[in-house]
Amino acid sequence: MPERPLLGILGGMGPAATAAFYTQLVTRTPATRDQDHLRVVMWADPTVPDRTAALTGAGPSVVPWLERGVRALRASGADVIVSPCNTAHVWLGPVAREQGVELLSIVDATIERALAVGGSDGAVGTSPVEAGPNGVGPNGVGPIGVLATSATLGSGLYQQALGERSRVALLPEPPAQERLIEAIYRVKVGTPAALEQAAAALADVCRQLVAAGATTIISACTELSLVLPGARAVPIIDSTDALVRAVLHRFHQPGTSSPGTPGPPS
Amino acid sequence: MPERPLLGILGGMGPAATAAFYTQLVTRTPATRDQDHLRVVMWADPTVPDRTAALTGAGPSVVPWLERGVRALRASGADVIVSPCNTAHVWLGPVAREQGVELLSIVDATIERALAVGGSDGAVGTSPVEAGPNGVGPNGVGPIGVLATSATLGSGLYQQALGERSRVALLPEPPAQERLIEAIYRVKVGTPAALEQAAAALADVCRQLVAAGATTIISACTELSLVLPGARAVPIIDSTDALVRAVLHRFHQPGTSSPGTPGPPS
Repeated sequence: MPERPLLGILGGMGPAATAAFYTQLVTRTPATRDQDHLRVVMWADPTVPDRTAALTGAGPSVVPWLERGVRALRASGADVIVSPCNTAHVWLGPVAREQGVELLSIVDATIERALAVGGSDGAVGTSPVEAGPNGVGPNGVGPIGVLATSATLGSGLYQQALGERSRVALLPEPPAQERLIEAIYRVKVGTPAALEQAAAALADVCRQLVAAGATTIISACTELSLVLPGARAVPIIDSTDALVRAVLHRFHQPGTSSPGTPGPPS
Repeated sequence: MPERPLLGILGGMGPAATAAFYTQLVTRTPATRDQDHLRVVMWADPTVPDRTAALTGAGPSVVPWLERGVRALRASGADVIVSPCNTAHVWLGPVAREQGVELLSIVDATIERALAVGGSDGAVGTSPVEAGPNGVGPNGVGPIGVLATSATLGSGLYQQALGERSRVALLPEPPAQERLIEAIYRVKVGTPAALEQAAAALADVCRQLVAAGATTIISACTELSLVLPGARAVPIIDSTDALVRAVLHRFHQPGTSSPGTPGPPS
């Protein structure tokens, strides 16, 4: 029996978000025994420099770290690579392409999930410039709030992907964005008090986005996945959840979920 | 600045126990930012054949899988290897030695923790053969109950390590051991109902060990870590917890917990 594919996880950015992603992946894999689970190799080097500082030029480039991580995963035999870090995707696409390994993008997974949950792109031609008040297009599908690091927003990854699907990205006002960044760093601190502060700030920013007209919110930062509000005025799309879904869809096609015990490794 | 050491985790046996170990390691690392965390590479191939079947000869050898996992971790640059699977340690010592990589043993970590929590080995000469009724030695330190897979028990790893420290290992009676094995496989199923059944069975087995005289219990299976009883008549030493402690002790020596951002990778 041919060996099953190996999933490469480029993690560590940050470690708690990586642990949550791996835990969700394991918990949600349809399996009743060890051997039904996905084969995984993970590279989690949290010494990657600060991603936001890298994008603004205030810190060193992260590309050498990403290159090394992808190289280690590739050398270990990874067939497909994922990274539970949205900001890393600012640089990760070209790095994966150069090393000839497929990247299952968290941005694509999250956008797809947002369109599935929050409504399709509706009428052709509903481009951002044609959107009405508050970005609501003629098809009645409203703007999508995007919660992300300033580096992710600065790269335009989400705005462009939404624009290509004729959806308007609604970003937090600068003071709210500052609170959001602070919340992300509080999650990285990780104490109960820090997590509580982060959750409160995130809930505030979500309320502001809804007040500004957002009919769906994308949480495009895996640290925020750890402190998402329970009560929700509009659907909140969690990028960690979306990536888990995409991986399970890709690796657990019907009929392949119980492949039996493969032969010994070569 | 020299690069910080890389921890290799040989996981996947099973995946939920591995996720819990990594999550605990991240949560308990003294860190306020990503860059303070440990550098980790993980190989988690759950298609390793059943360990118990391997030891009894009822299934294929697991050694080729362990060899490949250690080789992948070594090739990725791991300086020290750990495995959050007690049963794997039946074979892992020789595999790591042959490949020239240090293994930080979960068995050693757990035994050390048990002796620290449940009393030292006391008077010199309190060997198992000299133990009194119920295995209580003249120093009043009682026997240590051991919860583990039949493969781990069959290997004698824990019994030997305890004997060398003049402590008596108290094993569950055969019917209780069968219930324990069933509980471990229920944890691998992982549904809420299965976890509840496993927790109930484990609590029963713990009660029987205490009734038989155990003054400390070692939970020497990382699946059991997920369903340990909250109410405890005697200290229960959790091997997942013990391994996390050992890793943090080894990697976070005083003065090295905030090493700053190292130079770019070579």
